[in-house]
Amino acid sequence: MTYSIAVSGASGYAGGEVLRLLAGHPEVEIGAVTAHSSAGERLGSVQPHLLSLADRVLVDTTAENLAGHDVVFLALPHGASAEIAAQLGEDTIVIDAAADHRLESASDWEKFYGSAHQGTWPYGLPELPGQRARLAEARRIAVPGCYPTTVMLGLAPGLAAGLLQPTDIVIVAATGTSGAGKALKPHLLSAEVIGGMSPYGVGGVHRHTPEIEQGLGHAAGVPVQVSFTPTLAPMPRGILATSTAKITPGTTEAQLRAAYREHYDGEAFVHLLPEGQWPATKQVVGSNHVTVQLVIDEHAGRAVVISAADNLTKGTAGGAVQSMNIALGLEETTGLNLLGVSP
Amino acid sequence: MTYSIAVSGASGYAGGEVLRLLAGHPEVEIGAVTAHSSAGERLGSVQPHLLSLADRVLVDTTAENLAGHDVVFLALPHGASAEIAAQLGEDTIVIDAAADHRLESASDWEKFYGSAHQGTWPYGLPELPGQRARLAEARRIAVPGCYPTTVMLGLAPGLAAGLLQPTDIVIVAATGTSGAGKALKPHLLSAEVIGGMSPYGVGGVHRHTPEIEQGLGHAAGVPVQVSFTPTLAPMPRGILATSTAKITPGTTEAQLRAAYREHYDGEAFVHLLPEGQWPATKQVVGSNHVTVQLVIDEHAGRAVVISAADNLTKGTAGGAVQSMNIALGLEETTGLNLLGVSP
Amino acid sequence: MTYSIAVSGASGYAGGEVLRLLAGHPEVEIGAVTAHSSAGERLGSVQPHLLSLADRVLVDTTAENLAGHDVVFLALPHGASAEIAAQLGEDTIVIDAAADHRLESASDWEKFYGSAHQGTWPYGLPELPGQRARLAEARRIAVPGCYPTTVMLGLAPGLAAGLLQPTDIVIVAATGTSGAGKALKPHLLSAEVIGGMSPYGVGGVHRHTPEIEQGLGHAAGVPVQVSFTPTLAPMPRGILATSTAKITPGTTEAQLRAAYREHYDGEAFVHLLPEGQWPATKQVVGSNHVTVQLVIDEHAGRAVVISAADNLTKGTAGGAVQSMNIALGLEETTGLNLLGVSP
Amino acid sequence: MTYSIAVSGASGYAGGEVLRLLAGHPEVEIGAVTAHSSAGERLGSVQPHLLSLADRVLVDTTAENLAGHDVVFLALPHGASAEIAAQLGEDTIVIDAAADHRLESASDWEKFYGSAHQGTWPYGLPELPGQRARLAEARRIAVPGCYPTTVMLGLAPGLAAGLLQPTDIVIVAATGTSGAGKALKPHLLSAEVIGGMSPYGVGGVHRHTPEIEQGLGHAAGVPVQVSFTPTLAPMPRGILATSTAKITPGTTEAQLRAAYREHYDGEAFVHLLPEGQWPATKQVVGSNHVTVQLVIDEHAGRAVVISAADNLTKGTAGGAVQSMNIALGLEETTGLNLLGVSP
Repeated sequence: MTYSIAVSGASGYAGGEVLRLLAGHPEVEIGAVTAHSSAGERLGSVQPHLLSLADRVLVDTTAENLAGHDVVFLALPHGASAEIAAQLGEDTIVIDAAADHRLESASDWEKFYGSAHQGTWPYGLPELPGQRARLAEARRIAVPGCYPTTVMLGLAPGLAAGLLQPTDIVIVAATGTSGAGKALKPHLLSAEVIGGMSPYGVGGVHRHTPEIEQGLGHAAGVPVQVSFTPTLAPMPRGILATSTAKITPGTTEAQLRAAYREHYDGEAFVHLLPEGQWPATKQVVGSNHVTVQLVIDEHAGRAVVISAADNLTKGTAGGAVQSMNIALGLEETTGLNLLGVSP
Repeated sequence: MTYSIAVSGASGYAGGEVLRLLAGHPEVEIGAVTAHSSAGERLGSVQPHLLSLADRVLVDTTAENLAGHDVVFLALPHGASAEIAAQLGEDTIVIDAAADHRLESASDWEKFYGSAHQGTWPYGLPELPGQRARLAEARRIAVPGCYPTTVMLGLAPGLAAGLLQPTDIVIVAATGTSGAGKALKPHLLSAEVIGGMSPYGVGGVHRHTPEIEQGLGHAAGVPVQVSFTPTLAPMPRGILATSTAKITPGTTEAQLRAAYREHYDGEAFVHLLPEGQWPATKQVVGSNHVTVQLVIDEHAGRAVVISAADNLTKGTAGGAVQSMNIALGLEETTGLNLLGVSP
Repeated sequence: MTYSIAVSGASGYAGGEVLRLLAGHPEVEIGAVTAHSSAGERLGSVQPHLLSLADRVLVDTTAENLAGHDVVFLALPHGASAEIAAQLGEDTIVIDAAADHRLESASDWEKFYGSAHQGTWPYGLPELPGQRARLAEARRIAVPGCYPTTVMLGLAPGLAAGLLQPTDIVIVAATGTSGAGKALKPHLLSAEVIGGMSPYGVGGVHRHTPEIEQGLGHAAGVPVQVSFTPTLAPMPRGILATSTAKITPGTTEAQLRAAYREHYDGEAFVHLLPEGQWPATKQVVGSNHVTVQLVIDEHAGRAVVISAADNLTKGTAGGAVQSMNIALGLEETTGLNLLGVSP
Repeated sequence: MTYSIAVSGASGYAGGEVLRLLAGHPEVEIGAVTAHSSAGERLGSVQPHLLSLADRVLVDTTAENLAGHDVVFLALPHGASAEIAAQLGEDTIVIDAAADHRLESASDWEKFYGSAHQGTWPYGLPELPGQRARLAEARRIAVPGCYPTTVMLGLAPGLAAGLLQPTDIVIVAATGTSGAGKALKPHLLSAEVIGGMSPYGVGGVHRHTPEIEQGLGHAAGVPVQVSFTPTLAPMPRGILATSTAKITPGTTEAQLRAAYREHYDGEAFVHLLPEGQWPATKQVVGSNHVTVQLVIDEHAGRAVVISAADNLTKGTAGGAVQSMNIALGLEETTGLNLLGVSP
């Protein structure tokens, strides 16, 4: 059976990546591709790399245009998805790449996004405990943020095993600039970015902070508190997260490694690397894979976990397609058997 | 039926790219992966992005290890392939990514490579006139150079149609640094490359010059003479070729465009873009696609053709897999339905 | 004596570079710094690298604010300078980084810029024959375009010596993205630029084409005709120009080299490199230097000249300061003794 | 008076940067420039950006060649400087960019460098308490490591004021690849680096860890313990350090800011940015400046301090020249009035 798929926000980076993956997915047929200001244009003019879809014409992002498909991907600015989803049939699988339905806490939502909370949808990160089963039943799915995906896959196993302490976690992550979308902002101009690193959202104000704490809190079974600092790196894609947590007294590196190995046993996309080999974003660029490595720094009393993912693939569109596969009852890796493009 | 494939030079960029593509090819099984100094290592330690093949162990590059497969890819320094190929069965399809068997002229070979000519094999660029049929029968295939692939796909249709003049063609091309392989040379260090452009092989001395003239000569039906200047760009992959040729008097842009459209009609991988849209390497990075655009500059009396390809994919490994598909009688696009990874 | 200097367009790349150089110039005092939409802001907030000038406040770009200085730099969009200059005293040295007063041909101006020609000012490229003397008397100076500077310094000596033919010159150049200014255009976003090369203005339509032909025509003493293709490289600064011209029959490389050596004898900023060494943009980034190398490709019957410059320094602000020094009667290199920042 | 200067290791990145700065220093004359395998070559062939010094010839790195200068810069691999320094007169100012004489603890030296400790020299970071006076008397100076410079300038004021807690400091820093020198290692090839981020020396094993703890310990007056993770960014130069420390209970951001403002009052090269503006490496590339910003994350109970420096300038050669100026009794900023090259 072939499923029909609509993709909104098809002119942006997230929507374009969804289309790149769906174009190689054997069980789907791409239906409506929608946009806002680019409606009426050829897809090829705004996403010139999608050569096999170049002659598709973008239509307006309306519930009418998105209706009638088995699956609808929403790759819109936050605030738009609840209203559109409400107009789509309950049987339609709606997969939202925006933040709207990720947070469980209405007060966190209001504090970080400044608008009314729209409710919570099943969370599209099947590698977290319990999530895969929930996604199999889901008809509404909230795709995790790119930082939360990368960070949580790095820290969840150690917290779930009780080997890492849930308070005073410190995370510093570097992202490629596609994470900011196609926004026309001066600091994203290539002349500003190439050759330099810069921080942003310093001091706990990045919106992914509560999402990270929420997901890790579920893994740990207790509240988790993080210091999270994102930085902008001169690369188009990829996130490298350096996460450190105090170890539970007596924890050995062998124990910690065993917990990760067990947690990711059987997972197709998360790879605990062999000892001594470290994650790097180019291992995973363009793919749905995530690489993870850990070490215990006895001197500092902290475990350091490095994790690498592609913010647009596993961090957005790949995670979305993986969740779709689960919700449709397909093999989870369908259409996602892509390796990183390196060098 | 599943074909067994051996890949030599699997620790290098070309070999790694062949493996990346074969890992997603539905009709093949990867057999021996061989290397020289890395023999004995896990593939994952030298090609960390090939996560699904990480536990394969590299074996020595010997005819013994390569024998017994349906297809053998040679991704070795030039000079090694003739001897190895001679030891493989005549029914084995041998696909050589090195230069050894590309040139028809022994004197050109000797002049540019300084060793004895080893003969000529069918040339793995099916989009050139007559090549596809030859490849269908071939058991030995010479993969074109990355610059010749990009340049010839840009100029062949106009020359074949007699609309471009075969003498005084000027080509300037920019390549990503993977084109130089993993050679440990100071000028390839990232600190030297990032943030700058530099030329090399200026003055007609680049080894791809006679190969370009040979292929274009076949397309034109008369000898072709080019001035070719390659430059090194601060990017890992991709070639952007700017090729200019004098137009045959009276030629209009509409005529030229029609010739290209006809030439590439039905081709899966070469795309004449809509008027006004220009090739860029990021349209095709990681894919087997090539984009082409042309214009006539009346003031200068020249046509300018821009073509973009990924030097490692269509320019090496993708062209090799495409040729393999033809030689095996498979659908030509099998395993190559990948779009460019962008942004 | 200390000269007072005003800089308009101080929030842009050209204006910022003028200020970077003037901040290290021992004979000047920076007066008014003006901008349009950023007026009222601290300079440090829009040009955070100008740390020693961070607390200066940008004022509106008006003739009133610019008046009363010995020298006024105009780094404004084209079309604005004639009117402002008319309001400044005739003794004020006005140095215009915009295109308005570069072209001598009113019809070329109208064809390429689509507005009324505003007249021609002395051209700020002292290394062209006769220009230095003109600049010594000038009170109005048109700073050359970045491409023309780089290309003309590469080709002028050979044309002036009659060793290169003036027709059918082919130029392909790669520029860093600061050449496009701080314009908020999608194709300049870092995610679009990093990792790729793209062409623009193909087919003789780039506005620097007539400027190149004008300057080279003066050098050659006869009209010059070029095919010029600019490309965008993933770097912030720098231009690498590959220029090829047919040689006058019988010309040897030694003759050509001698002509260049003689032409640049005594020049502080233009360097004919030793034979075998090639220009690269990183040799000159952040400096007022230009490197040049040449070769004759006998097979193609063409000389190939490579030249490298920093589009913002020698290509704009450095050339402007050099011209100012000449007009003020200062040592030409004052404040410009900076070497390239490399790696 | 003009001082004569010798520079060893002139073929490397650190030596080249020393020469770039000295070439613009008004009080010095560059004498011997020495190298190891490049001895006998023109400086222009190994450091093509040093155009004004291109015709200097590199001589062997021997005490004989270095003797007879007022100042000798050692930019050699660690392990070589003690022996050479011993052969230079006691009045010669010897400035060592290697690590040999930075650490006070012989056991730390042996643990991290695996050889015998060679003693400790005055430490070339005048912005640390007490260091400027020591440098004024010094005839042997150990230039700090690039990470320690960047990190210590970020954390020292808060620790010295007792507002940050000295234990459980977490630092994650990104460096440009020139930090690794010109070593021909596969992971430094541009194709590997461009487009990606990777960590190295994870788990407290980087050699700059004890140096950071030593310097911060002096500032705090008590032992300091850090978790330090360096990462490699796709840029040639620059370090961005994200340093977090727990605040002493009751500390307000205003108090912390006041302590930094006071600490850096009168410093020419260290800039506490205005509130809300953040350091970025491009603010300081090519310059001796350092930018710093801080915030208190109440939720996490930590201060986050960001600092940015150029690893080759303030982090190595600029700090070395600044120290030389102090030791010679020159104005500290002589020859260092360079602003960052941006964009």
